[in-house]
Amino acid sequence: MSGGSRWPAWFDPDDDRLARAAWSRLAEPGDEEAWGFVAEHGAGVALRLLADSGGRVSPRWWVRWAHTDPRRDLRVVERFGGRWIVPGDAQWPLRLDDLQQRRPFGLWVRGPLDPADACARSVAVVGARAATYYGRDLAAGIATGCADAGYTTVSGGAYGIDAAAHRAALAVDGVTVAVLACGIDRAYPRGNERLLEQIAEVGCLVSEVPPGSAPTRWRFLERNRLIAALTAGTVVVEAGWRSGAQNTARHALGLGRPLGACPGPVTSALSAGCHRLLREGAVCVCDAGEVLELVAPIGEQLTLDPDLTPTVLDALRPEQRRVYEALPVRTPAGMDSVARHAGLEPRAVERILARLAALDLAQLSGGRWLRGAGKPAREPSGRPAR
Amino acid sequence: MSGGSRWPAWFDPDDDRLARAAWSRLAEPGDEEAWGFVAEHGAGVALRLLADSGGRVSPRWWVRWAHTDPRRDLRVVERFGGRWIVPGDAQWPLRLDDLQQRRPFGLWVRGPLDPADACARSVAVVGARAATYYGRDLAAGIATGCADAGYTTVSGGAYGIDAAAHRAALAVDGVTVAVLACGIDRAYPRGNERLLEQIAEVGCLVSEVPPGSAPTRWRFLERNRLIAALTAGTVVVEAGWRSGAQNTARHALGLGRPLGACPGPVTSALSAGCHRLLREGAVCVCDAGEVLELVAPIGEQLTLDPDLTPTVLDALRPEQRRVYEALPVRTPAGMDSVARHAGLEPRAVERILARLAALDLAQLSGGRWLRGAGKPAREPSGRPAR
Repeated sequence: MSGGSRWPAWFDPDDDRLARAAWSRLAEPGDEEAWGFVAEHGAGVALRLLADSGGRVSPRWWVRWAHTDPRRDLRVVERFGGRWIVPGDAQWPLRLDDLQQRRPFGLWVRGPLDPADACARSVAVVGARAATYYGRDLAAGIATGCADAGYTTVSGGAYGIDAAAHRAALAVDGVTVAVLACGIDRAYPRGNERLLEQIAEVGCLVSEVPPGSAPTRWRFLERNRLIAALTAGTVVVEAGWRSGAQNTARHALGLGRPLGACPGPVTSALSAGCHRLLREGAVCVCDAGEVLELVAPIGEQLTLDPDLTPTVLDALRPEQRRVYEALPVRTPAGMDSVARHAGLEPRAVERILARLAALDLAQLSGGRWLRGAGKPAREPSGRPAR
Repeated sequence: MSGGSRWPAWFDPDDDRLARAAWSRLAEPGDEEAWGFVAEHGAGVALRLLADSGGRVSPRWWVRWAHTDPRRDLRVVERFGGRWIVPGDAQWPLRLDDLQQRRPFGLWVRGPLDPADACARSVAVVGARAATYYGRDLAAGIATGCADAGYTTVSGGAYGIDAAAHRAALAVDGVTVAVLACGIDRAYPRGNERLLEQIAEVGCLVSEVPPGSAPTRWRFLERNRLIAALTAGTVVVEAGWRSGAQNTARHALGLGRPLGACPGPVTSALSAGCHRLLREGAVCVCDAGEVLELVAPIGEQLTLDPDLTPTVLDALRPEQRRVYEALPVRTPAGMDSVARHAGLEPRAVERILARLAALDLAQLSGGRWLRGAGKPAREPSGRPAR
């Protein structure tokens, strides 16, 4: 199949954009040799070197030569209102450069959003396809909260956690990006066809493989590196002990990106992967607030610490608390008895009782002391409701 | 109440053990000044200095002088088959010395077990009183697994997680120790009276406050430091956002002891405290195996990593896997087509196909290739069942 013209009609060694589109078909995602070859010679010259050598430069790229036609790919994508963006374009998400030799040659993009803009403030929300209601609820809550805070939800368009996260973001008019392992013209999985169409209408579909490409296991794994690289941080909501989400998580860690994992019942096989990640360094995140705290620049997000909502008793110093505890509830007691139970010096107890009386936490009854009910506690502002 | 003889009948400045028993009544747990005073002068001389000064040394110790009678306390405890152990005794748990100025003067002990022996290999299993079934199951599983591995379960004798852990250890004839905030002659909480009796019969009840002492909030908090200090590590099974178990956990961290927390549903208020601890540095533990891994010396415990149980496909190298994925399932394909789909050089694909054929993962059909069913996977040894 190495036949056909060595100089196909589409060939133009000066068109870097076109040459990169060709490379996106010739080499599998994450092919570091291809990346290095293109980086060394430029995409167009690299193509010519491959053609001139009759494929001897690399037979594994050459096997696809005769089936490569980037002008056709561009036409196909344009029919969907899609486009091909490459490094240097304004829409190129700069975070992808962290992938170094595993950078994609470009991105096939569909949808009205600028992927660079959309991913600037973004969280990857990923997890099991066979997710539980618990996991899907959790994913939806996180995506909703992220949308409310102006953060984009990036995921893989799969069943389960991915779909729950995309849908929740769409439901509140939030921004969502699906990164696919197949061409952006293919609806995979088929059951998410309507969802992927919706994302293409208002959000962004992204892939590094050209139109028509099938999703293979290899491409799923390499797709996961894009999800991790495109976002400010990754959250695994539910995942089996071995799963694609684990793979995405490892890419995030490898890139030095914040990684969160949601806890769940230890009895749930779909939380086992999350617990594994927690043991391996992921941060425990229970809601959107904690996710944003994980990925937002310091100072931007603030999770309310429920500990900052004291009751009257919490405001007491330890010795005041001890005296309060030493006060009888029913039969009034003398000061000496209170001091003995508290194990504190009588003069100090006298002073503390006066303070407690002012707070209605102690009351005098015929020269003896009783516990008081206390002034009403300050209204607790509490933890933000989930 | 500073009346009565300055030289009570029990007084013997040379009897260090007796003097320490007196100090266990005069000073509240964790009174660093009392500890320093006793460390400086010795327990007996410190008592004499207190008495000779008419209490001026410290009015807060003096308020209890007239009510202190360590010989009576020792008699009371002996009636229960109990004893008073002090630093230097063979039964003294050396881990307590890590508490430094917050060391107890001694321990009131009840039950047949030597607390030093019992705590040498031990885990603190603590948590909410109002525990859920989930939490109690989890605590019971951990205590059972620890008992099976020869580890003692130490807890606080309270309702909920504590009781579930103690009971599970007892049920498999494991060793269990309850550390109380009240005297070892008191059954608190009342509903655990039978459980505490059982522990006294076959295990060990421990307290630093003398017989008859009531459990106060202060003593609960100080009791928690003993639970953390007595054990090789602490595990919080379920805990509210603010709870006593959090306090025990903080003592464990303060002492540099391993701290584990069990995850649970993010929707459960009784897991919120555990998730908080996970965010603050606790290790995620889901079962006894992970608990033992946390507290056991390196090499002693080994949790089987389920990742070590590969299938035939997992054993494939990435390029072999890519060729396998490129093989058609129904209509046989030529070698060139397989190479093109895999994006690999034909000669390499030929070699790989031979290897896959040997594993029954590829099969020839009229000179063309099909995917094979593969030899049966090795029996997975899997994760130990929970």
